[in-house]
Amino acid sequence: MNLQNSNPQPVDAAIVPRFGAIPTFMRLPYVTDPAAVDIALVGVPWDGGTTNRAGARHGPREIRNMSSFMRKVHHVSRIAPYELARVADLGDAPVNPIDLMDALKRIEGFYAKIHEAGAMPLSAGGDHLITLPIFRGIAKDRPVGMIHFDAHSDTNDRYFGDNKYTHGTPFRRAVEEGLLDPKRTVQIGIRGSIYSADDMAFAEGSGMRVIYMEEFAKVGIEKVIAEARRVAGDGPTYISFDVDGIDPAFTPGTGTPEIGGMTTLEAQTVLRGLQGLNLIGGDVVEVSPPFDPSGNTALVGATLMFEILCLLADSLSRRRGR
Amino acid sequence: MNLQNSNPQPVDAAIVPRFGAIPTFMRLPYVTDPAAVDIALVGVPWDGGTTNRAGARHGPREIRNMSSFMRKVHHVSRIAPYELARVADLGDAPVNPIDLMDALKRIEGFYAKIHEAGAMPLSAGGDHLITLPIFRGIAKDRPVGMIHFDAHSDTNDRYFGDNKYTHGTPFRRAVEEGLLDPKRTVQIGIRGSIYSADDMAFAEGSGMRVIYMEEFAKVGIEKVIAEARRVAGDGPTYISFDVDGIDPAFTPGTGTPEIGGMTTLEAQTVLRGLQGLNLIGGDVVEVSPPFDPSGNTALVGATLMFEILCLLADSLSRRRGR
Amino acid sequence: MNLQNSNPQPVDAAIVPRFGAIPTFMRLPYVTDPAAVDIALVGVPWDGGTTNRAGARHGPREIRNMSSFMRKVHHVSRIAPYELARVADLGDAPVNPIDLMDALKRIEGFYAKIHEAGAMPLSAGGDHLITLPIFRGIAKDRPVGMIHFDAHSDTNDRYFGDNKYTHGTPFRRAVEEGLLDPKRTVQIGIRGSIYSADDMAFAEGSGMRVIYMEEFAKVGIEKVIAEARRVAGDGPTYISFDVDGIDPAFTPGTGTPEIGGMTTLEAQTVLRGLQGLNLIGGDVVEVSPPFDPSGNTALVGATLMFEILCLLADSLSRRRGR
Amino acid sequence: MNLQNSNPQPVDAAIVPRFGAIPTFMRLPYVTDPAAVDIALVGVPWDGGTTNRAGARHGPREIRNMSSFMRKVHHVSRIAPYELARVADLGDAPVNPIDLMDALKRIEGFYAKIHEAGAMPLSAGGDHLITLPIFRGIAKDRPVGMIHFDAHSDTNDRYFGDNKYTHGTPFRRAVEEGLLDPKRTVQIGIRGSIYSADDMAFAEGSGMRVIYMEEFAKVGIEKVIAEARRVAGDGPTYISFDVDGIDPAFTPGTGTPEIGGMTTLEAQTVLRGLQGLNLIGGDVVEVSPPFDPSGNTALVGATLMFEILCLLADSLSRRRGR
Amino acid sequence: MNLQNSNPQPVDAAIVPRFGAIPTFMRLPYVTDPAAVDIALVGVPWDGGTTNRAGARHGPREIRNMSSFMRKVHHVSRIAPYELARVADLGDAPVNPIDLMDALKRIEGFYAKIHEAGAMPLSAGGDHLITLPIFRGIAKDRPVGMIHFDAHSDTNDRYFGDNKYTHGTPFRRAVEEGLLDPKRTVQIGIRGSIYSADDMAFAEGSGMRVIYMEEFAKVGIEKVIAEARRVAGDGPTYISFDVDGIDPAFTPGTGTPEIGGMTTLEAQTVLRGLQGLNLIGGDVVEVSPPFDPSGNTALVGATLMFEILCLLADSLSRRRGR
Amino acid sequence: MNLQNSNPQPVDAAIVPRFGAIPTFMRLPYVTDPAAVDIALVGVPWDGGTTNRAGARHGPREIRNMSSFMRKVHHVSRIAPYELARVADLGDAPVNPIDLMDALKRIEGFYAKIHEAGAMPLSAGGDHLITLPIFRGIAKDRPVGMIHFDAHSDTNDRYFGDNKYTHGTPFRRAVEEGLLDPKRTVQIGIRGSIYSADDMAFAEGSGMRVIYMEEFAKVGIEKVIAEARRVAGDGPTYISFDVDGIDPAFTPGTGTPEIGGMTTLEAQTVLRGLQGLNLIGGDVVEVSPPFDPSGNTALVGATLMFEILCLLADSLSRRRGR
Repeated sequence: MNLQNSNPQPVDAAIVPRFGAIPTFMRLPYVTDPAAVDIALVGVPWDGGTTNRAGARHGPREIRNMSSFMRKVHHVSRIAPYELARVADLGDAPVNPIDLMDALKRIEGFYAKIHEAGAMPLSAGGDHLITLPIFRGIAKDRPVGMIHFDAHSDTNDRYFGDNKYTHGTPFRRAVEEGLLDPKRTVQIGIRGSIYSADDMAFAEGSGMRVIYMEEFAKVGIEKVIAEARRVAGDGPTYISFDVDGIDPAFTPGTGTPEIGGMTTLEAQTVLRGLQGLNLIGGDVVEVSPPFDPSGNTALVGATLMFEILCLLADSLSRRRGR
Repeated sequence: MNLQNSNPQPVDAAIVPRFGAIPTFMRLPYVTDPAAVDIALVGVPWDGGTTNRAGARHGPREIRNMSSFMRKVHHVSRIAPYELARVADLGDAPVNPIDLMDALKRIEGFYAKIHEAGAMPLSAGGDHLITLPIFRGIAKDRPVGMIHFDAHSDTNDRYFGDNKYTHGTPFRRAVEEGLLDPKRTVQIGIRGSIYSADDMAFAEGSGMRVIYMEEFAKVGIEKVIAEARRVAGDGPTYISFDVDGIDPAFTPGTGTPEIGGMTTLEAQTVLRGLQGLNLIGGDVVEVSPPFDPSGNTALVGATLMFEILCLLADSLSRRRGR
Repeated sequence: MNLQNSNPQPVDAAIVPRFGAIPTFMRLPYVTDPAAVDIALVGVPWDGGTTNRAGARHGPREIRNMSSFMRKVHHVSRIAPYELARVADLGDAPVNPIDLMDALKRIEGFYAKIHEAGAMPLSAGGDHLITLPIFRGIAKDRPVGMIHFDAHSDTNDRYFGDNKYTHGTPFRRAVEEGLLDPKRTVQIGIRGSIYSADDMAFAEGSGMRVIYMEEFAKVGIEKVIAEARRVAGDGPTYISFDVDGIDPAFTPGTGTPEIGGMTTLEAQTVLRGLQGLNLIGGDVVEVSPPFDPSGNTALVGATLMFEILCLLADSLSRRRGR
Repeated sequence: MNLQNSNPQPVDAAIVPRFGAIPTFMRLPYVTDPAAVDIALVGVPWDGGTTNRAGARHGPREIRNMSSFMRKVHHVSRIAPYELARVADLGDAPVNPIDLMDALKRIEGFYAKIHEAGAMPLSAGGDHLITLPIFRGIAKDRPVGMIHFDAHSDTNDRYFGDNKYTHGTPFRRAVEEGLLDPKRTVQIGIRGSIYSADDMAFAEGSGMRVIYMEEFAKVGIEKVIAEARRVAGDGPTYISFDVDGIDPAFTPGTGTPEIGGMTTLEAQTVLRGLQGLNLIGGDVVEVSPPFDPSGNTALVGATLMFEILCLLADSLSRRRGR
Repeated sequence: MNLQNSNPQPVDAAIVPRFGAIPTFMRLPYVTDPAAVDIALVGVPWDGGTTNRAGARHGPREIRNMSSFMRKVHHVSRIAPYELARVADLGDAPVNPIDLMDALKRIEGFYAKIHEAGAMPLSAGGDHLITLPIFRGIAKDRPVGMIHFDAHSDTNDRYFGDNKYTHGTPFRRAVEEGLLDPKRTVQIGIRGSIYSADDMAFAEGSGMRVIYMEEFAKVGIEKVIAEARRVAGDGPTYISFDVDGIDPAFTPGTGTPEIGGMTTLEAQTVLRGLQGLNLIGGDVVEVSPPFDPSGNTALVGATLMFEILCLLADSLSRRRGR
Repeated sequence: MNLQNSNPQPVDAAIVPRFGAIPTFMRLPYVTDPAAVDIALVGVPWDGGTTNRAGARHGPREIRNMSSFMRKVHHVSRIAPYELARVADLGDAPVNPIDLMDALKRIEGFYAKIHEAGAMPLSAGGDHLITLPIFRGIAKDRPVGMIHFDAHSDTNDRYFGDNKYTHGTPFRRAVEEGLLDPKRTVQIGIRGSIYSADDMAFAEGSGMRVIYMEEFAKVGIEKVIAEARRVAGDGPTYISFDVDGIDPAFTPGTGTPEIGGMTTLEAQTVLRGLQGLNLIGGDVVEVSPPFDPSGNTALVGATLMFEILCLLADSLSRRRGR
């Protein structure tokens, strides 16, 4: 038990076993006031932007459930996030399961409050469209850079006629709305058959750096890390992790799996290589429990959240001059 | 093999085994012209009205898959639907997974064409909101009666503020729009905890006959059948079967399961008791394959479709003076 | 939303969808002070008394998860528990996954505090041995009667030599310790092959009324209810529901399934017939999520908790002269 | 522990827990000499006669696995089979997974040896075609009667041109070969759509008594038992139980499920009503573990084997005038 | 939508969502005339050659189902198969689930017609024995070379006495029958315990190049590609992909899994390295849905089919001088 | 078939298919006398030391089941274990599911007898605490070295107050008891978040060589092998393999999964690199079938047992001067 500071601490597994207690993110306290935290763990139980297999609405619950496996200190970086920052479970953002536009507004409002309170959000989706209202809530004042893990670029334009908002469009919208700086955006793990030869025209045309899975495998992790750091630079940067960026052997429970992806260890190694960037938030999305019979995808989601949490806490600590 | 008439026939299981061939409903031919059939088997792969667990969008595929188990003659009534009527798989109604109002319009249009061509639809959902656009397509000229199997009345009013269209509201909307005659509507199998004591006020106030599961268990199947026949009378009547009307031991793969329901044999017995009603269509909804690890729910859905198909073919044959 | 009184209320499903929010029992607030409630919902994540398939330690989490399906009013009895009583989630009793005797002590202590605070416990197990420390916590002052649903009598003596405490022995121990009045105890649903012809000697010899499943099927529910009421009389009575009392088609997720059991509807009907007894607590045990691929067993567990909660709230209300 | 006689006894669950030890049928010793037993428990891991979903080849292993749940005495009849008879696991009959005709010969040979040794076989399939070579092995000297639980009559003639041997034809072949007396045969639970109106012509024409599921539900169990006893009379009688005779909510893990079947309790009650018949063997077939995610079907299979074992031991004991 | 040519095109996912419509391979039209296509996608729902776990008979349906995830252009090679060739779903080859020799004949006949019509087949199995009748249908005029991905050599001789045809023997038979040129055959990914030290004698003795998984891991993908190209040369070459060539973490749903295999990305990379070979057909076999709870194996199967389809279309286009 | 010596041989898969027969380890005979074997295959169905998700008690049965996939000769090393040594299934060690201390004693006793008889044990767990009583049984005369594959060091001290024995503590206890020589111990694959920065203090302080997963990935397999050989030296060495050492994509069925682990091929390659060490036993632990829907984890467990068996047989043969 950490007695050195008064930061919120996870339930102690030597007192309450991991399978016990009401499951909050990382077994942290549930608090409702964003001003009470430095890093807000938030669920966004919504998949209204999903064009294929739904189910990511159940992601936050199962990620919370599996996050009980997480302990307190990162075994490689030795970052101890709960010593560096006040971290808690802020509960779920409000959503609307049957009205997409209303849902976007509700989510935005919730994140705007977190942002105003001075906290950084780390979210569990939900489908990838949630990152758009999150950006609207936290990036209105200046565009942010992004390290984006995904099998898909998510920069499509329209769908089913004239629908602008799906989980395949958030980052085109974010660029258009001035929330995301494409020149400070790197997409890692992109792969899978495409609709037409110009599917990637917007991403590449706008200046995003796209590291296809094939380049990833060829150049190796160290160069991927270096390139990601180069692109992001020292401006404010967000980490968005779609679990389909990882191979579906590791994360079968997702809506749009694409085979031939990276391993979890590769993903973790890249994440660890981002330490020191100027991070301002992150998310893990597209965990879809109904397609996850072994529960492994939710465990991956929870562990990636812990990895990103360590990065955020460290970045905050650096900004504060530790 | 039926050589007596030229009606479409299922693929012969003694030539192509049941697990073979591209799965259409009942292994019937896929046809695109509704004028070529008397009874149109239609999928509606859409669950945009779902307020809790989604997945019914995958219902039509799995029901088609499991419908390969169906043979050609009903073993109790001896109805041979493919001798009495031209039946085929009309494919799926067009939908829109991310725009509820657009989806309702697309579905309505598809059914309007079937109706204009003089065919009766028998549909596989999808969530229960699909019955509303089906009614808009086929019941505009006069309200229809309904035999409604369900754990829930689906006559709620609003949801999440002012949203009028969810899978909990179709039959209030249908009554309001003059598509459904509440006095010729019977709801069978209703049960489960309720939001407030007046949850059933609209259903009962509008004149629907609600047979709660408890009454069902108490009075017995014969009286339920008699009551259903009395309520429906001889006007045009639609059968809508939400698989959560059945106990989740039999149909776990559904979005809003309620324990304490009827068995499949009870449901089949009631359906068989409806022979001779003036039937004009039907549907089986809320089969949600992601929650159906054994596939049994889809098998129940396919079998209920066959039960209703026999009733529709028989009713058609009677109207034609056989 | 109930505004008539200040009792704790479940999260409103028209504001936060059922799959959202951190899952507490019935979506009620989590409170830590037993004096703040009339009925304490408690998890006991422990299966250290299990002699065959473990996993009931995960029961409380999945029952909490599935309890989000519950609404606010009982559709048959019209009991509205949150209007009649202050009900909340008290979290989990402390346990010890590797030390049986220590676990029994920890659990007893937790319940003793609830009892001293004047609250009634309604618990989610855990294996059936947990009922023994619950009794030690709440029945020390006088033996209680019990309505016991189960496939097994749980009145064995020793196991593996001289071990006195397993999930097969709690009620022999409870009688020996003067916590349980065998003459006011009825066991319902008992069945399954036995070790020897005198397996039931203690139960029957001590005066318990054993209603085997075969008698249940033969005499019918009404007589079972009458007999249960007769045995319990008007003394303080506890309801203990082992989900293996129900047939494993309905509740596969349990450690010691026995085929040939009652349906959920039968179980619910018996429970509803107990309204008016002098009830002082209850539990639902042996839900084992690792053996429950569809999640249906946890849903049954949650619904049975709601059924018993309504009975407890009603009984409390009667005792208070409503 | 039974010390009264030297019959083989199951492993004691108070010494080796049920999940331990190498799984034999009922935890009995594995013996290779049929002369050492009165009742031979045999697996037939073969599904080469299956025309739809295979997998029953894995039935014996999972039934053995689940049979560890069985104890030693029947709780209703109080029959203690291991006191009345020498019972053991004889292992698996030899099969051939890729040559149907060779498999039939191998199986027949194995059972002929059991028969010659004077033992009665109780078998776990395997698909239903295995009953034909079993009959060839044990019924050559005189036709036997049969109590047959099934959704299907299994009296088809040919398949895929001129193939005479599938799991849909064994009992037509058995009648043709003089192994089965159709007039002493009763089929219970028959249901499901049929290929043509005369599907049942052979069964009914040859004199078998067919109790459709609908008659079963209508007349009740007592009359079904009486009718079965009347048909079987006092001649040598075999019990063949296809688990698809039971509703797939209870036994999803089978190749050709048909909804609307009996419950396990109903099946058990009928079986118990057969006590006193002149029984000479039995089988439980069509348990298909790959379609049985919860394992419940294998548990049903193991329990039905125990039910039949008790009947066989009792019948033997009566014949011996014990 | 491709309007440049009149080739068959997949259903447009922006009009019919991926989970909608009757599932054909790649959502292409179902056509019955092989002369209407350049590349025929064919299912072979048969596993009669399987010596261990069956279920590959269900492969074609689930691969069709999962092939809805495929889009239209290869993201690495930029091959757009539907622009280069006429591709369609030819349905399933006729089989016989209970007569091995008859099944081989039926399958051969179907492929002979495709071959005579001048089309190349790309097939979804079924077990690996199907490649033998495919070769008989398309390779009678001259032996073909083969790139063979597999954990097993499938060059055994006899089984269960004198049975020559199982899924472990096709390539010895094919060599013996002059259909396969062993000197132009490379086997990639071979691994797993063996029956005796000379298990590989035929493969190696006949001149096949066997790249064990250990060599694969050691020398790296580039050298494996170079070696495969060298062996195949510029003669007509077939690609046969048994999904157990890949590690069962990626493809658990198969009959004879062997741990320690390649990743999907490695397999895809090798396949992509085969561009430019003189390809004349291919297959993906041993996908067994009953052992594939997450559906991932069928997704791998569908994606491998798309990878091979691109190679076939490209090869065709090259032969035609584009 | 090996006719060269009289050693026990596996059931021949060309006579009894792999899915047939009662499943013993590797399909070897079940023998009860340890003096009759050189290598004793033993199950330890016990998970009483598990602090999180139980289920490893079911490991031995499923590993036995899956071990039927194993053949007779190692395809890389060409070791033929059944020619080199007498190997058989000794059944399960006695346990006690509800009394930890008693279980430890029972297990120790069983292994002491094996050791006294001069046989080497190769065990299937069970949770990792079982290695402690195994060591007590076989290492009392001198401390052994250990090659330890695991995500966790299992060198914790106390748990839940003062409990010294859990599956997280065996190797601290073994060092304290003089059974394990920490300086001859190497831990491979360690990873995952930790409780505090000094979690590894005992392991590293006592002299164990800890190869974290990150070092493993960085330096490569060859150097890991060399280091493991260096640490073990030529003293008596035991191999303990916790399947959570492997990534949960490959081994989801385990109690404490940690993402980012090694592949099975990497694990196998390291094991093969250990040939020639002075090996005296081994185990494979923490296979938990209830969390293993595809069965792949048990297959990995069985294959790892075969890998270790080959090493043990080879080591024995070398000691005997072959």
